[in-house]
Amino acid sequence: NLKKALGKIHPADIAHLFRYFDLKDQKKLLVLVPDMEQAADVFSELESDSQAKLAEQLEKDFLISLVEMMADDDSAELIRSLPEELAEDILAAIHDDHSDDVEQLLGYDEDTAGGIMSTDVFALGQDLTVKQAIEALQDSEDYEMVFYVYVVDEHNHLVGVLSLRQLLTVPPATSLADVMTSDVLRVRTDMDQEEVAELVAKYNILAIPVVDEHGKLMGLITVDDVIDVMRDEATEDILRMAGTSEEELLYGYKSFHVARLRLPWLLTTLVGGVVTGTLMWYFKATLEQVIMLISFIPVITGMGGNVGGQTSTIIVRGFATGRIDFSMIRQVFFKELRVGLIMGTTCGLVIAAVAMIWHQNIYLGLVVGLAMVMAISVAACMGVLVTAFFKKVGIDPAIASSPFVQTVNDITGILIYFSTATLFLHHLI
Amino acid sequence: NLKKALGKIHPADIAHLFRYFDLKDQKKLLVLVPDMEQAADVFSELESDSQAKLAEQLEKDFLISLVEMMADDDSAELIRSLPEELAEDILAAIHDDHSDDVEQLLGYDEDTAGGIMSTDVFALGQDLTVKQAIEALQDSEDYEMVFYVYVVDEHNHLVGVLSLRQLLTVPPATSLADVMTSDVLRVRTDMDQEEVAELVAKYNILAIPVVDEHGKLMGLITVDDVIDVMRDEATEDILRMAGTSEEELLYGYKSFHVARLRLPWLLTTLVGGVVTGTLMWYFKATLEQVIMLISFIPVITGMGGNVGGQTSTIIVRGFATGRIDFSMIRQVFFKELRVGLIMGTTCGLVIAAVAMIWHQNIYLGLVVGLAMVMAISVAACMGVLVTAFFKKVGIDPAIASSPFVQTVNDITGILIYFSTATLFLHHLI
Ligand SMILES: [Mg+2]
Ligand SMILES: [Mg+2]
Ligand SMILES: [Mg+2]
Ligand SMILES: [Mg+2]
Ligand SMILES: [Mg+2]
Ligand SMILES: [Mg+2]
Ligand SMILES: [Mg+2]
Ligand SMILES: [Mg+2]
Ligand SMILES: [Mg+2]
Ligand SMILES: [Mg+2]
Ligand SMILES: [Mg+2]
Ligand SMILES: [Mg+2]
Ligand SMILES: [Mg+2]
Repeated sequence: NLKKALGKIHPADIAHLFRYFDLKDQKKLLVLVPDMEQAADVFSELESDSQAKLAEQLEKDFLISLVEMMADDDSAELIRSLPEELAEDILAAIHDDHSDDVEQLLGYDEDTAGGIMSTDVFALGQDLTVKQAIEALQDSEDYEMVFYVYVVDEHNHLVGVLSLRQLLTVPPATSLADVMTSDVLRVRTDMDQEEVAELVAKYNILAIPVVDEHGKLMGLITVDDVIDVMRDEATEDILRMAGTSEEELLYGYKSFHVARLRLPWLLTTLVGGVVTGTLMWYFKATLEQVIMLISFIPVITGMGGNVGGQTSTIIVRGFATGRIDFSMIRQVFFKELRVGLIMGTTCGLVIAAVAMIWHQNIYLGLVVGLAMVMAISVAACMGVLVTAFFKKVGIDPAIASSPFVQTVNDITGILIYFSTATLFLHHLI
Repeated sequence: NLKKALGKIHPADIAHLFRYFDLKDQKKLLVLVPDMEQAADVFSELESDSQAKLAEQLEKDFLISLVEMMADDDSAELIRSLPEELAEDILAAIHDDHSDDVEQLLGYDEDTAGGIMSTDVFALGQDLTVKQAIEALQDSEDYEMVFYVYVVDEHNHLVGVLSLRQLLTVPPATSLADVMTSDVLRVRTDMDQEEVAELVAKYNILAIPVVDEHGKLMGLITVDDVIDVMRDEATEDILRMAGTSEEELLYGYKSFHVARLRLPWLLTTLVGGVVTGTLMWYFKATLEQVIMLISFIPVITGMGGNVGGQTSTIIVRGFATGRIDFSMIRQVFFKELRVGLIMGTTCGLVIAAVAMIWHQNIYLGLVVGLAMVMAISVAACMGVLVTAFFKKVGIDPAIASSPFVQTVNDITGILIYFSTATLFLHHLI
């Protein structure tokens, strides 16, 4: 009965259920799926971390049958994430046709067009007629999502494209070469997946053909793959901005692995924190004479960190979505400086008032307010400069954004605050 | 010549060029585009902020012709972002057919299925034959991206769907009712756009029909719209995590508007900073007696903020991608606690060693190290609890993530540090 019910549920929905089961139950459930093709679909829809974990638990024969049923791009993705030995066993065992495709795909870098494409692309010779093309389409069940027909010459060079609707609207005897559009948007196997996603989003297309350096048609990237790329790239950026990495999703609940991944960022910030502390120690004479200065340390460093984080985030996301490029950095810098000055002045006035009322000292208000204006304005500028610098030298600017900019701004904030206080020291005592 | 060249460039590429021009030049360039339909495509491809700004600069007649050429969903999106008066003028001036569609779309909330759908859905009656359907398809140029044929009954209720490939593979005389799939995935006009995007991503489909509460077919959402939604939602989350909002992209270089948008978050953090300062003030006796304590204030608050930010970010993104839900929060909480303890112990040992060597005081090392372990572990827990709480009560958890969690952890960090120091005070002096 459960079997019957499973047969009627969409593979993606079954895959979703797997989140709520442990590995043992996942295995039981997968084996229960009535036919192998549906099981392969369910398995393909799992997140790649749960996929790999489950694969290691399955009977090897069952796993091999699954992989044979999977699309070649999904097979390659799975094999990439398996332990080397198991990966080799499976590659050796699966059917020759399929393993050739998969091995070819494994040859490309994971983050490139070649790494996300499928080799199952529906292509026809340019000499065929429209009638022949329609006949060919009728037995094209093995290809995923056919909505364009790609046209190739005798050496498999991509020479044209036709939409299914075009096929329906021209006389059956026409040759494909006469009706195809020969200006086909295409990408090379080594293009970064993020750029591929950009192109698909920009031109609102459903699929993009992938060619090698000689223009030979090697595969196809469909829009559903692009959606996955966009989501993964956004996750990558968001996690990097927080000082961790998308790798941690692979570790699940393994605390030691997760901690080891996040620690490098923390230890960097720790060094920054010690530097800030050393600066404060250097100013300890000032602080000992005017102990009330301590009450505004957290607010000065905290605000600097926030403003720097805002500015840096705007720029990281601007670079990622193409809204900002280097030609605009000057303009963005001056905008952020102006915004920083406005926000700094507002926060400076508020905190000056708080300081005067609290400690009944006009000069303290002056010092704290002035330091706040400067700290926030400098933080805004730093947010732009550090982020743009990281991008310029080829480091992912997302990792600049949170811990790094925060630390830099802690240091400049303390420096500004205590320098100002030391300058006005004789008024404060 | 420029006109000729423009005629050959893809509208999306022309729209991209607009980023590098000011409003006056953008206007000139748009008017130069040879035919009105291409101009409308270019205009539709602009980011909505530049679109609205440019619209206000155009001659009203030209703008009206543009809007008439635009798809109804794009027209509605534009009109939503225009000043009320101009919006009304345009709605009154455009052709009746189109303005009915647009007004209907304007009736839906911007962030729902109704707000992003197009009314141009290719639907046919269930009594038609396959042959008639193919004929109808041949004059379907006005519809965007036809790859499914939706089938409706006499009252326009959605009853089935057919792919173009299915149409090609069945005998021409069959009636649509006999070959269609009647189990059509659909969404209601009031479904949140983010859920719609989830569905399209999950089931790898190219379009999803939108129905009203009676099951009547109202419109269609295509995968290119879903890509835009996913990108916008990621941007929204990223900017909120940094304590600003996606609205600021509308303001461009207008510093006052941007500052006004970011200030509420800053002022909230400012209050938090003052609270932290008050706590420090409360412990000033401890600090006056052991001045070397100041050197570790920045590192304790900084590390707590970072760890809390990491944890909170993991959870915000987990909720957004469906990887985490409330049933897993307990498990996630304990994982983060363990990760916090591991990272806290590591950082605690490092900072204890630094403290002992620097100030030649074993007890200072003990106090600082212990405080670090506790501050980091508490921060990890806070990151989970605050974020999950925000989600539970219906506030976007993304806004919990950065400034809020940072502030909370500044407060707990200081509290932990000075309490520990006060406890060991007689050893420190
Ligand atoms: Mg794939
Ligand atoms: Mg193949
Ligand atoms: Mg698009
Ligand atoms: Mg694909
Ligand atoms: Mg990236
Ligand atoms: Mg990448
Ligand atoms: Mg749209
Ligand atoms: Mg219409
Ligand atoms: Mg998908
Ligand atoms: Mg659309
Ligand atoms: Mg939203
Ligand atoms: Mg959202
Ligand atoms: Mg901080």
